[in-house]
Amino acid sequence: MSGNCFGKLFQITTWGESHGEAVGVVIDGCPPKIPLDEAIVQEMLDRRRPGGASTSTSRKESDTARILSGVFENKTTGTPIMIMVENKDAKSGAYKSIADLYRPGHGDITYQKKYGIRDWRGGGRASARETVGRVAAGAVANAVLNQNNIDVFSFTKALGSTIAEDFDRNAINQNMFLAADLNAAKMMEKEVVEVKKMGDSLGGIVEVRALNVPTGLGEPVFDKLDADLAKALMSIGAVKGVEIGAGFEAAKLRGSQNNDPITPEGFASNNAGGILAGISNGDEIIVRVAVKPIPSIAIEQDTIDIHNKPQKISIKGRHDISAIPRINVVCEAMVNLVIVDHLMRQKVLQSKRDD
Amino acid sequence: MSGNCFGKLFQITTWGESHGEAVGVVIDGCPPKIPLDEAIVQEMLDRRRPGGASTSTSRKESDTARILSGVFENKTTGTPIMIMVENKDAKSGAYKSIADLYRPGHGDITYQKKYGIRDWRGGGRASARETVGRVAAGAVANAVLNQNNIDVFSFTKALGSTIAEDFDRNAINQNMFLAADLNAAKMMEKEVVEVKKMGDSLGGIVEVRALNVPTGLGEPVFDKLDADLAKALMSIGAVKGVEIGAGFEAAKLRGSQNNDPITPEGFASNNAGGILAGISNGDEIIVRVAVKPIPSIAIEQDTIDIHNKPQKISIKGRHDISAIPRINVVCEAMVNLVIVDHLMRQKVLQSKRDD
Amino acid sequence: MSGNCFGKLFQITTWGESHGEAVGVVIDGCPPKIPLDEAIVQEMLDRRRPGGASTSTSRKESDTARILSGVFENKTTGTPIMIMVENKDAKSGAYKSIADLYRPGHGDITYQKKYGIRDWRGGGRASARETVGRVAAGAVANAVLNQNNIDVFSFTKALGSTIAEDFDRNAINQNMFLAADLNAAKMMEKEVVEVKKMGDSLGGIVEVRALNVPTGLGEPVFDKLDADLAKALMSIGAVKGVEIGAGFEAAKLRGSQNNDPITPEGFASNNAGGILAGISNGDEIIVRVAVKPIPSIAIEQDTIDIHNKPQKISIKGRHDISAIPRINVVCEAMVNLVIVDHLMRQKVLQSKRDD
Amino acid sequence: MSGNCFGKLFQITTWGESHGEAVGVVIDGCPPKIPLDEAIVQEMLDRRRPGGASTSTSRKESDTARILSGVFENKTTGTPIMIMVENKDAKSGAYKSIADLYRPGHGDITYQKKYGIRDWRGGGRASARETVGRVAAGAVANAVLNQNNIDVFSFTKALGSTIAEDFDRNAINQNMFLAADLNAAKMMEKEVVEVKKMGDSLGGIVEVRALNVPTGLGEPVFDKLDADLAKALMSIGAVKGVEIGAGFEAAKLRGSQNNDPITPEGFASNNAGGILAGISNGDEIIVRVAVKPIPSIAIEQDTIDIHNKPQKISIKGRHDISAIPRINVVCEAMVNLVIVDHLMRQKVLQSKRDD
Repeated sequence: MSGNCFGKLFQITTWGESHGEAVGVVIDGCPPKIPLDEAIVQEMLDRRRPGGASTSTSRKESDTARILSGVFENKTTGTPIMIMVENKDAKSGAYKSIADLYRPGHGDITYQKKYGIRDWRGGGRASARETVGRVAAGAVANAVLNQNNIDVFSFTKALGSTIAEDFDRNAINQNMFLAADLNAAKMMEKEVVEVKKMGDSLGGIVEVRALNVPTGLGEPVFDKLDADLAKALMSIGAVKGVEIGAGFEAAKLRGSQNNDPITPEGFASNNAGGILAGISNGDEIIVRVAVKPIPSIAIEQDTIDIHNKPQKISIKGRHDISAIPRINVVCEAMVNLVIVDHLMRQKVLQSKRDD
Repeated sequence: MSGNCFGKLFQITTWGESHGEAVGVVIDGCPPKIPLDEAIVQEMLDRRRPGGASTSTSRKESDTARILSGVFENKTTGTPIMIMVENKDAKSGAYKSIADLYRPGHGDITYQKKYGIRDWRGGGRASARETVGRVAAGAVANAVLNQNNIDVFSFTKALGSTIAEDFDRNAINQNMFLAADLNAAKMMEKEVVEVKKMGDSLGGIVEVRALNVPTGLGEPVFDKLDADLAKALMSIGAVKGVEIGAGFEAAKLRGSQNNDPITPEGFASNNAGGILAGISNGDEIIVRVAVKPIPSIAIEQDTIDIHNKPQKISIKGRHDISAIPRINVVCEAMVNLVIVDHLMRQKVLQSKRDD
Repeated sequence: MSGNCFGKLFQITTWGESHGEAVGVVIDGCPPKIPLDEAIVQEMLDRRRPGGASTSTSRKESDTARILSGVFENKTTGTPIMIMVENKDAKSGAYKSIADLYRPGHGDITYQKKYGIRDWRGGGRASARETVGRVAAGAVANAVLNQNNIDVFSFTKALGSTIAEDFDRNAINQNMFLAADLNAAKMMEKEVVEVKKMGDSLGGIVEVRALNVPTGLGEPVFDKLDADLAKALMSIGAVKGVEIGAGFEAAKLRGSQNNDPITPEGFASNNAGGILAGISNGDEIIVRVAVKPIPSIAIEQDTIDIHNKPQKISIKGRHDISAIPRINVVCEAMVNLVIVDHLMRQKVLQSKRDD
Repeated sequence: MSGNCFGKLFQITTWGESHGEAVGVVIDGCPPKIPLDEAIVQEMLDRRRPGGASTSTSRKESDTARILSGVFENKTTGTPIMIMVENKDAKSGAYKSIADLYRPGHGDITYQKKYGIRDWRGGGRASARETVGRVAAGAVANAVLNQNNIDVFSFTKALGSTIAEDFDRNAINQNMFLAADLNAAKMMEKEVVEVKKMGDSLGGIVEVRALNVPTGLGEPVFDKLDADLAKALMSIGAVKGVEIGAGFEAAKLRGSQNNDPITPEGFASNNAGGILAGISNGDEIIVRVAVKPIPSIAIEQDTIDIHNKPQKISIKGRHDISAIPRINVVCEAMVNLVIVDHLMRQKVLQSKRDD
């Protein structure tokens, strides 16, 4: 029950630090006989690897996934699946100069105060590198979702001040920002260039959607599907907000506007984001997260050192300009994990029903 | 691990349906020797009782709390605390006419499809009446927080289209909408009158703040303080979004704007909402939730019945115009529960530290 | 996760003290649409009520079960089931004289040292009265097992020095000691009379068997079926040992004697007690528990008071001579709970299998 | 919550199969700043390595432990600790001939029926090799116990028909059977030689004791210290029974004999085995387990194949004659894990107490 486990039936435990020997995950509870090999995991991992977009760090990690247990003859066996990625391009030297400084917007100060000790190399456990384990597990979850015909995908809804109004799923992989809107992508590129020049960074909004999710997933009153999605997504480093369906906009609507009328063919609108009373309603699941700008910036900032002395800091390492778009696949992985977990939880009830 | 338990060390299980015999909660893990009696619970329960504001239902429940275990000579004993409130003014007759209809925006349809059976009286388990258990537990959590000098409070940030820009904590209990801004409260009153006349309903935004939360609460990488707050709040019936600190606004800021500079006296700003890398940083915890408009409206809506036939529905029961302000104390209770749980989790580590 | 919850999918939380207002249980995770009413619960509760056998206390509790939630029109709804029994014949006065004394063999001293406070009336939470909640939950579990054709029963294997060698299931309800051997029952009666005269008490051995348990229940490597049975049974107040199948006798056997040969028709013997590698093998589940003698005896004993002063104590309340046979139904209830929990856990996997 | 996790605050997840690439464990919740390096883990692991006693297999594994996360500059950081041991001397070829046979007394048949698939190489996940992860975690738990001055040790109480009556702690490491009685050890040697010749195997009894365990550990009513010990030990492959203190003998005693009198200096006897009402009483914790004989024997046995056809089987691999004494350190590791978990759980309460 410690903080590095997630999920109830499809339960994962991630481990590893940014500049330790390796990062990885143990998946306990994956159903048996699911087709799985390292290539399936690698494909999803490759989507979070640095270097893909102009917003990303130049750290070069091949991030090769090794499955060390739980798979026999390319099928899961129902036993724990351990997946590991070695850290190869970790350059801790670059961090030595700031080992005694608390970087603003980072967990340096809170980790130190919580644990009384911290691995300062590359942010240690608080590094985004921890998400390697999440994505590897998300790939396994996806293998289970595939068997249930469930389709989860993500895209960039906003980057900095640029909001993508259009939605064209085909566009997502045609631009490096993973926007579903090619015009918006062009404006994002402009904004990135400008911000990079200033030594600053950008936030944005990621949207994740899930298609073909069966009705009935979610366990009221606390483990509601939206509650677990909120936790899953808010647990990602840079995320500061989560909303379902109409989300914060719903606060401004009247009941007559916000309610989704029900017809024999389904819901006439989807302000609910596919979830009613915490249970999937058969419609598309829609969730958005607010991503804060990367805190590591070249612009000089005020901070303190571990002796509580005021200091100036300017961070010059290999840092992303924005967590977007590398964070998108992490959000998607977390949604995969929540849905597969609830799919399994619902199976318990279904097998008991005679209707 | 089923869906009606919340918390890891301070763990609650709520039970009961809107029109069943009673609703209540069992609290397992409350520390011993905390001063507690029924009056303490009653005081917080009274804040969620209907009838307080012009937005609220006319259902009259005295909601008298009885503590049936876990307290001896007005102190907790470390054993489970069971608190129960009987349902007295439940008028199920009013619901019989809609027993076969799925109310739009409600859990009727999803409960039926999930469980294959539902207690349709008053919304059953999906009713806001379930939150009686949450608030009773929140009162006990608050008794523990009091001993740690932690102060949690809530207020209405927005109701419908009215946003409260000012913040005056004293104002909160001087207006029936629990806004921290008396001018905004007046405008809210106007909007409510108008909407009521139309048979429609309103949503809004609730903000919860926690003062004096010690540094170090939160358990990365999944049980981060913000992740658990997000889950806790999103698990409340009408909530569609949760944000921490600058929240969705942070998505638009640059790193240089969003980062909170660190000084020897503390943080120079609080965009982080008191949480860095999922761990409390000693600053004020700030969280906001988006509350959707009450789905029960007099205005006629399209829906279906349990035989999948199209129907019209117009809901005329004793319903609130808005979940606000009755939901505010529920939000506060959930924040209490998360903080006390993490306070206890952190004690485990602290007792091991020599610094 | 605090200590008063048991089970993973069929999860119970018991609450209440011996002389508090009531004792009870919340069951979270019971499948929907299971036929259930108060009579079903009452029938099992009546089996643990004092007064049945000459070994039992004269405390007279009608122990009337009330179901306050989770059941609608005599069927479970999938929401939490709260069952409560009021304490009516609690005579705390009798305990006042020993409020400052630690009774040998009881939890008085350990509760005081653990929590720094204790409800000394009637043993408080450490009283066997807590098992009311377990048995009520066991009755609900049994309702689920019935639907799966699983049959769990218990009997007295030994009382004091009398060991029941024969096994006749029909005999169990034909003698007040619930032995499956009427001759042994007669000898037990003799031993009880003699011990009662001396103001002393007796222990014994209870055996529980489960028929028609499907192959495949149990979740290696920690939540093995036998491991969860061991925990469930050892968590009962007076139990000091648990063994499966041949149990401690297996330690003396050779592999060639202990192994159960496998034939196309099933296992040729059952030293395994129906469990191999922690997973049910389709054979009869057999488990035995060692029950210590009731610690409350009239014979004078050495002890200390809460000020650490030496004292003499002689306990004269309304006490059982032996926890047997009232404990038998408690053991059975715990086995019910473990099996139903694992039945549900296995459903998760089965629904994924195509063979 | 799946079956490969153990513990609540000090939580471990083991992973790996006998002939997979590696076996290991993730420890989530280890307190920070505990001195730890690979040598500490290796020392405990070496005690379970084959080859130490005449009862053991000739499989030669160096079993070199690697710590891949959670430790920085030889101290734990409070983040997950991953420890891994590669499988190097796995000879799966030897198992191919029995891939289609269910070995009596083994989990082959139950794993196949539960999961519909199994890694048959060397017993897969059901192999005793899985305990490498338990022992590695037990070594880390021991590092925490050391800081609390708690001393856990184990010894062989019986092997086959030989019972060790004497107790001399110094003797334990002076004989290859780890008996606390050198005379008994000699008789054990004789019995082993004889049984080996016959191609048969032996069971026995292991006792674990814990000294200096503080009063107050254990969380009634389900997570009692003895209940968690019972589960922990019964989850070990070959264990068929667990008893605390007087255990099954207590069933035969009278209350006046079994009760431990309390004096100002402590308990006058220890039939309780250091646990009262599920809470440690400050006395020595004493627990014994019944170990069944190794099921892999050269003597021919009846069994079936995966097509349900009758077959003969005679197992000639590199097998131990008895799980004892290699299992002793595994029992010790499980006791370490339970005690450290409860030590941490009790810290939560202590920090709240003012007495």
